[in-house]
Amino acid sequence: MELTGEEKERQLKAYLELLKHPSISATGEGIRETSQLLRELMESLGVSSSIVETAGHPVVYGEYSVGGSSTLLIYNHYDVQPVDPLEEWTSDPFSAEVRGGRVYARGASDNKGTLVARLFGSVKAVREGKVNLKFLYEGEEEIGSPNLSSFVEANSGKLKANGVLMEGSSLDHRGRPLIVLGVKGLLYVQLDISTGERDLHSSNAPIVYNPAWEMIRVLSTLVEDGKVKIPGFYDKVRPLNEREREMLKDYDVSPEELMGSLRVERLRFDDPQRLREALFGEPTCTIDGIVSGYIGKGSKTVVPHKASVKMDFRLVPDQDPKEVLQLLRAHLNRVGFKGTLTEMGLERPMRTSPDTRLVRALEESAREVYGKNPVLVPNSAGTQPMGLFVELLGVKEVASAIGVGDPNSNAHAPNESIELDNFFKAVEHTSSFIKWYSSNVY
Amino acid sequence: MELTGEEKERQLKAYLELLKHPSISATGEGIRETSQLLRELMESLGVSSSIVETAGHPVVYGEYSVGGSSTLLIYNHYDVQPVDPLEEWTSDPFSAEVRGGRVYARGASDNKGTLVARLFGSVKAVREGKVNLKFLYEGEEEIGSPNLSSFVEANSGKLKANGVLMEGSSLDHRGRPLIVLGVKGLLYVQLDISTGERDLHSSNAPIVYNPAWEMIRVLSTLVEDGKVKIPGFYDKVRPLNEREREMLKDYDVSPEELMGSLRVERLRFDDPQRLREALFGEPTCTIDGIVSGYIGKGSKTVVPHKASVKMDFRLVPDQDPKEVLQLLRAHLNRVGFKGTLTEMGLERPMRTSPDTRLVRALEESAREVYGKNPVLVPNSAGTQPMGLFVELLGVKEVASAIGVGDPNSNAHAPNESIELDNFFKAVEHTSSFIKWYSSNVY
Repeated sequence: MELTGEEKERQLKAYLELLKHPSISATGEGIRETSQLLRELMESLGVSSSIVETAGHPVVYGEYSVGGSSTLLIYNHYDVQPVDPLEEWTSDPFSAEVRGGRVYARGASDNKGTLVARLFGSVKAVREGKVNLKFLYEGEEEIGSPNLSSFVEANSGKLKANGVLMEGSSLDHRGRPLIVLGVKGLLYVQLDISTGERDLHSSNAPIVYNPAWEMIRVLSTLVEDGKVKIPGFYDKVRPLNEREREMLKDYDVSPEELMGSLRVERLRFDDPQRLREALFGEPTCTIDGIVSGYIGKGSKTVVPHKASVKMDFRLVPDQDPKEVLQLLRAHLNRVGFKGTLTEMGLERPMRTSPDTRLVRALEESAREVYGKNPVLVPNSAGTQPMGLFVELLGVKEVASAIGVGDPNSNAHAPNESIELDNFFKAVEHTSSFIKWYSSNVY
Repeated sequence: MELTGEEKERQLKAYLELLKHPSISATGEGIRETSQLLRELMESLGVSSSIVETAGHPVVYGEYSVGGSSTLLIYNHYDVQPVDPLEEWTSDPFSAEVRGGRVYARGASDNKGTLVARLFGSVKAVREGKVNLKFLYEGEEEIGSPNLSSFVEANSGKLKANGVLMEGSSLDHRGRPLIVLGVKGLLYVQLDISTGERDLHSSNAPIVYNPAWEMIRVLSTLVEDGKVKIPGFYDKVRPLNEREREMLKDYDVSPEELMGSLRVERLRFDDPQRLREALFGEPTCTIDGIVSGYIGKGSKTVVPHKASVKMDFRLVPDQDPKEVLQLLRAHLNRVGFKGTLTEMGLERPMRTSPDTRLVRALEESAREVYGKNPVLVPNSAGTQPMGLFVELLGVKEVASAIGVGDPNSNAHAPNESIELDNFFKAVEHTSSFIKWYSSNVY
């Protein structure tokens, strides 16, 4: 199923064009235009497509039916993270510059590269196969998929499928495709404290309340040495079982490699297996952003009048994001938090079985295209809305696999990029996967 | 000494023109132009003036000698605080709009209003008096006067004076002029923590360090319930004595009035005397600003790679800012702070005697012009470089007095403003003060 030069040219053109359209879900920038462009691309490939409105950004949905007995649902998202800090980008995040064999752009890896590669690869294979395809492209994944659940629920008949191929995979440090059997969950909140109408001269500090100090007091009760101190937070955590821990041994990235790709000088653990088990098996509470008072150049002597924190909780099975939100609220009340909590995203964690037709087809096709054994992990370190497909569609076969990124792809960071070769490999991997999935009975 | 309409017109014109020139010391914006404009104004009033370079922003210095036996040094500053948050201003901060009898502008009160009023008032009176005048207008007061000390030291011969009239006074809630006998000191620092080169996808949270959490851990060891927890911080604090506590009883602003002018709903204390003694007698540690990670709209899931805090310590006699800096450094080392500390400002606290010719002349002239007894306070709640004049020039007579501001003046905040009438009153007060100071022997 190797690609012809002509095919590659067409695929790359479509990919770069999509990258040149911003689609930042946090601000809404370019979302409409990008959804339109995507729909046109799908139609041009013979996929019957539509733009479906939600309470937020629209879903782009498509179907390619060959009258087969099985149906695969392919999930991706066309939205991207914000680009700041812009000054740290070497080239414009929406210029989609190709240099040194890599494509640089916001969304190059997460998730437009994977989306386009899998779209081309699956459409190519389906023409000779026995599997019907459904495509669900979300526009709000990077803001926690606030409307996906109701979309899937409302369209559960239309979305019916035997298996779901999620995004969120990549190549590992050895260039091996990752097959991810589950996801961490997410709870994203913002905390705001306000003590007045304006910043005050800091000579008033002895008699007024400072929302920054109040925020720090509250935050300091949440985490200690990386551990979450909210009572009950760890109660529902299901530890990795023996098979899952064994699985992780194949994910044999060294601490040095990790530090290199993350460009940090220290990691929380030295032992490689401890690192892996933390990365995939432990929940976290992260400050994503905090701001209060004067943050400009030089000095300004003020008591701020408001303080704001954005915070995410990455959750593992069997933690329930709604329950964690309740625990957080109860904890904040207990410590006397006098502010507001805004829920900004909520996703279930989950792990599925490695013993499915879908996973076997992913393994066989990976070996065929990359000439290497793929690496299975029990769940992603990140988050995506895998849980709701299992829950709402009753799908048993589900995995994240076939991604264009690598450990240097800088998802969510400046200079996001992928190896161009890996884009075409992902096209081939998808075609091979569809072939294996449709022609073999396990 | 009442002002003629012609005098008022000229004074207001000069005042508004100065306000229309930004002079933000934190960024340097407009500093040069403003110093030039100020020098021209002084020359036009017969004050022999020059712009004196420092390692930072220049000093504007002037002399008006009448061959008198006494000399007064008048200190003001022509720089202003930054204007952000700009969106909270009703009119442009440098348009100097007059509405409802008030002048709105950054610097209207702090310190251009006081500067101009005292310049006109003193020059008018000196022509008939026996006191020589010296004017020292600093351009870096709002960033902690980093070069004033070396300027005063290098020019101690030229600056020789019997008394120093500092800025930093205003009218109180009853419209009574405040005479401030001392100042709180200041230590301004910035703390920075960096853990990598870029913000990372927050799925890495289990294995990397988060500088925001690290900053919160460190900050949470500094302050608890308004009290500074740095060991040794309170050791040198000299409590207010009986006379000073009595003095403060005249400063009879109610908690309700304070909340009204600060526009806050809560104060740290209910008892009025407790509030006053805290405001003038207690040192503080204030977070002026904190920032880390994503602070834009919506959500972004990142582990930040740096965190930054601006912090000021307001100090009381006999705390020494250098010593407090050492205590802070030692404390940060003890709690394992892995970041950098940048010193950004340092000023001594002090209190002087109320029994001086200078203070008596201020009291008499206040009664004459305002028809009210002035209110004496042992030191300001804010900071200004009073200490170094006493220290480096050996001056015994010093006070902050004659200010154009009132409790609603919003110094350092949006919509800074003064009553226009209070501007002219301050001109008259200055003239009367010069007359009393030069014609009476106490």
